[in-house]
Amino acid sequence: MEVYIRKVAYHETDKMAITHHSNYIKWLEEARVFLLEKIGTPFEEIERRGIASPVVGINIQYKKTTTFGDVVEIHTKVKKYNGVKLELEYEIINQATGELAASASSSHCFIKDEGLCSLKKADPEIHDKLQAAIDAEEK
Amino acid sequence: MEVYIRKVAYHETDKMAITHHSNYIKWLEEARVFLLEKIGTPFEEIERRGIASPVVGINIQYKKTTTFGDVVEIHTKVKKYNGVKLELEYEIINQATGELAASASSSHCFIKDEGLCSLKKADPEIHDKLQAAIDAEEK
Amino acid sequence: MEVYIRKVAYHETDKMAITHHSNYIKWLEEARVFLLEKIGTPFEEIERRGIASPVVGINIQYKKTTTFGDVVEIHTKVKKYNGVKLELEYEIINQATGELAASASSSHCFIKDEGLCSLKKADPEIHDKLQAAIDAEEK
Amino acid sequence: MEVYIRKVAYHETDKMAITHHSNYIKWLEEARVFLLEKIGTPFEEIERRGIASPVVGINIQYKKTTTFGDVVEIHTKVKKYNGVKLELEYEIINQATGELAASASSSHCFIKDEGLCSLKKADPEIHDKLQAAIDAEEK
Repeated sequence: MEVYIRKVAYHETDKMAITHHSNYIKWLEEARVFLLEKIGTPFEEIERRGIASPVVGINIQYKKTTTFGDVVEIHTKVKKYNGVKLELEYEIINQATGELAASASSSHCFIKDEGLCSLKKADPEIHDKLQAAIDAEEK
Repeated sequence: MEVYIRKVAYHETDKMAITHHSNYIKWLEEARVFLLEKIGTPFEEIERRGIASPVVGINIQYKKTTTFGDVVEIHTKVKKYNGVKLELEYEIINQATGELAASASSSHCFIKDEGLCSLKKADPEIHDKLQAAIDAEEK
Repeated sequence: MEVYIRKVAYHETDKMAITHHSNYIKWLEEARVFLLEKIGTPFEEIERRGIASPVVGINIQYKKTTTFGDVVEIHTKVKKYNGVKLELEYEIINQATGELAASASSSHCFIKDEGLCSLKKADPEIHDKLQAAIDAEEK
Repeated sequence: MEVYIRKVAYHETDKMAITHHSNYIKWLEEARVFLLEKIGTPFEEIERRGIASPVVGINIQYKKTTTFGDVVEIHTKVKKYNGVKLELEYEIINQATGELAASASSSHCFIKDEGLCSLKKADPEIHDKLQAAIDAEEK
């Protein structure tokens, strides 16, 4: 579990005076990037090795609104990883109140040379690091 | 079913040279606004009457990428409406290829005077129009 | 002079209940893309030919606020073009009131093979079309 | 002079594989918010007191591109303040290279009760703090 911390920007609010819901999708990405860096497989490195990992699905439930100036903690963990598909789970917590602002999950595939690939085969080094991080987490 | 048509902007792409996935969430909102206008209950009017309708959940599956210059059709319909909760379904089609780029659903509640409300009670006129549009659709 | 027409989206507003000022920068880009298409040198085509045209500067003056649902007209014209640098001028008009919402200018260079280039030399065909459109405009 | 530090997010890139230029406009806002907080007049507090401070103009020159994963430092200072108008200057530096990525300025007015106001008269307390911070800076 990694915790990415972020302040809500003014430009992320909308005319209801709350954070526009589309920004949470961007935050999930930022939290993913943060997680991958923390576990030693930075996304920049994955991309440099010719692998892309696009989003194939997102499910998000908005629980409590947040707004400009709020600090949110995004708790991220790997829910499932089998070399071919990666699923992450997120909880977005309003730091000041401790309330759950949103819970979400995202799923991802891996692409190399413009086709779907198994990360396990396409890049065993990255795969092993990712797998080790997941195993360590579960202990 | 209403069809909202939109061209992918350059600023909506990311370094994978595809539309960044967070923009689809904005497109769903644009398609919702378009639908509400078409059925005679424009969102501007709903807001003027003191009612907000925040997003409580989104589920989206990305099927095929799109990119700058692509024209997308967003087919939107009401999946469920009971006066208290509204659920919409969307299909995002790449107009040139006819391929399904993404399918999604969103759910919404209604807020008046800072609390949850039944649109049926809070604003029967809007409720009736919405209900009539849904009934007409189903025939 | 080309006129690009656009409706302000809900997701473009901020907590002041007006269009967030950063979105106007995106609109300028959309208006540029529209202009280039209209004069027969679509940006997609320019990029396909290996030429990029990044923004090197923007100046914008915000005159009147706009908000969700407003329709804006963006009047765009080439202010200066010499084969190496391109300058555009924009007026953003609120269609309902006729008021000037913002005036802006942007300047652009041309890049080929990762270095600055003269479009006149790098791609005479695109250059000639662009020049002809500017000449026609000035008559 | 305050220095706001920020990492470029993946969602801020475009298909040229660089940070999309519109995001710099958002960063300027984040740097302003950071500056105001540092000098003891947080924007949240200004807004709570019924004062808005919209952007009336922006001038930005893009010097060097940045991209996903780059860390940028935004050096911000008050260029001019006379109680009625506020002008800020910014330098966006790529932290790893020390290169100037962009330089910019923004100007702002003050609004109370939906009309232009002098901050000096409308809220002497905020004005005095802002003035003191500027005076301290100049020494």
